[in-house]
Amino acid sequence: MSSNIQIKLAARPEGLPKKTDWNIVEADIPVPLDGEVLLQIIYISLDPAMRGWMSAARSYVPPVRIGQVMRAMTLSKVIESKNPKFKPGDFVTGTQGVQSYAISKGEDLAVVDPKMARLPKYLSVLGMTGMTAYFGLLEVGKPKPGENVVVSGASGAVGQLVGQIAKITGCTAIGIAGSQTKCKDLVENYGFDKAIDYKSEDVTTSLLKFLGKGNGIDVYFDNVGGDILDAVLGTIRSRARIIICGAISQYNNTSGESAGPKNYMALLVNRARMEGFVVFDYIDRYPEAVSQMVKWMAEGKLKSTEDIVQGIETFPETLLKLYSGANSGKLMIQSASV
Amino acid sequence: MSSNIQIKLAARPEGLPKKTDWNIVEADIPVPLDGEVLLQIIYISLDPAMRGWMSAARSYVPPVRIGQVMRAMTLSKVIESKNPKFKPGDFVTGTQGVQSYAISKGEDLAVVDPKMARLPKYLSVLGMTGMTAYFGLLEVGKPKPGENVVVSGASGAVGQLVGQIAKITGCTAIGIAGSQTKCKDLVENYGFDKAIDYKSEDVTTSLLKFLGKGNGIDVYFDNVGGDILDAVLGTIRSRARIIICGAISQYNNTSGESAGPKNYMALLVNRARMEGFVVFDYIDRYPEAVSQMVKWMAEGKLKSTEDIVQGIETFPETLLKLYSGANSGKLMIQSASV
Repeated sequence: MSSNIQIKLAARPEGLPKKTDWNIVEADIPVPLDGEVLLQIIYISLDPAMRGWMSAARSYVPPVRIGQVMRAMTLSKVIESKNPKFKPGDFVTGTQGVQSYAISKGEDLAVVDPKMARLPKYLSVLGMTGMTAYFGLLEVGKPKPGENVVVSGASGAVGQLVGQIAKITGCTAIGIAGSQTKCKDLVENYGFDKAIDYKSEDVTTSLLKFLGKGNGIDVYFDNVGGDILDAVLGTIRSRARIIICGAISQYNNTSGESAGPKNYMALLVNRARMEGFVVFDYIDRYPEAVSQMVKWMAEGKLKSTEDIVQGIETFPETLLKLYSGANSGKLMIQSASV
Repeated sequence: MSSNIQIKLAARPEGLPKKTDWNIVEADIPVPLDGEVLLQIIYISLDPAMRGWMSAARSYVPPVRIGQVMRAMTLSKVIESKNPKFKPGDFVTGTQGVQSYAISKGEDLAVVDPKMARLPKYLSVLGMTGMTAYFGLLEVGKPKPGENVVVSGASGAVGQLVGQIAKITGCTAIGIAGSQTKCKDLVENYGFDKAIDYKSEDVTTSLLKFLGKGNGIDVYFDNVGGDILDAVLGTIRSRARIIICGAISQYNNTSGESAGPKNYMALLVNRARMEGFVVFDYIDRYPEAVSQMVKWMAEGKLKSTEDIVQGIETFPETLLKLYSGANSGKLMIQSASV
């Protein structure tokens, strides 16, 4: 044990977060009081939503304050415990932030079983990422067997899972991703029926060609917004459901406003619905989803990739991989060995 | 009986329909065959949706073909009947189009009772207009007592009814309209709690001021799209429902694409829903809505205004009143006296 490295928000970014938007500081390792535990953070989850947390704008959670440790989901090891619910050596998930050590009263912690799944899985398929794919697709999208499901950001952590859960549900799964390599991977390794490279293909044309005449999209899980949302809106059919999960294409927009979906009147013509959701609303049902996902993994029906970068100091540049499309699967930082 | 004056679509308009987009022709009065009735059209309903029917774009009904009589809801009188279900002197509603006489096999006709309500009411509160307000607000918006309901195009035929039905449901009704006179009328004569003149007020500011801190919009019935949709999206609260009924601000847009709602990410943050609907989907339930509306009218809880213009030849310019905001209440043409 040396010191606690913390990544603090130094300034609210305009556009993509820059190095100068962060302060990397070394603090003393904190000492737990009665009822508290000292945690060493092993894995830090990097999520597209982080860009929103850095903004002052009203959202579903308060913004991270300037000077505060950046908010992040984490998997940690209990080092010292003055709380009877935890013992040294336990592994726990929580929201400890981008730092190497943290104190917790335990209320936000959940003990995980390293024998049930490898530790990084608790931040990907069994963490917020998996819960987002599971509840977003099944509860908001309500796909029925035989329907056509499209997901954008399909090579991302959430997207990979959405396509696979769509297949498990008996749907046709179509992914939209940003390279031919990613598309090949989605079809060959993740069982997508079709993948469209939006950088080299016209999304509407490719969708319509794949679907065939008189066919359309029933469920669209949107991670990206922008032109791709418009393209998919142009191909929906009656009673379609659009799940607004994110808008990566717009998060770092500096014009101060998002590009809205020009094609939104397709909702009227098709009696369709566009609905936002926040995964935390389903927190009481996480255990149900976790046991379902573990079962699917055991049956070989559900795979997830983790893209693990070493070293907490890499956080400012590693985060940018989410917005440049440089990563596949779940991006996380390993800040200590187990 | 002289001749049948018909208004036919001559060209697909770009932007606002021009005089040259119409042909006014005089045809012979048609003769009914066995099973048919000859109708004299008394009232012709003018609806914002007509602009969509004139476009070649895919929609929930096929476009009106070039050279075809313009589609319109009508109230007619049976002049001659070779169909046992109808007798001369009956009044019927149907979709006879913008012409002074029409033949029908009777399948699309419904006999109405001139004693239950004045005839023009069958094209307004008891017609498609009323059905749109009733099912759009109650079935898609699902307002609960105490919620805040906003309607745009509030002085229009649908808007006036939406606000009044919101009040009947126990909600706070807020209208957005295009003049101070219209706003005064909504509050004084239609019982709206608040009306905002979007031409002289900033809609977001006025909404937030009226609602007060920590409050927001639960249901928005959108007839107009564009900037007003964005403004209201900025004031929604958790689980809000946005009913996409129309987008008058965009119908005559010549850029070829609608302005999308830039603020659509408010749906995510607020776990809100934006949903399109087409009133024809509720056709089996029209009788339920009609009897409810008649009851509310009898109890003095529901008023409607009809803006009746004389003469079928005025159709090309009368239609434009819908898009310039020149009318209040239900716009219709009287093409013959009863």
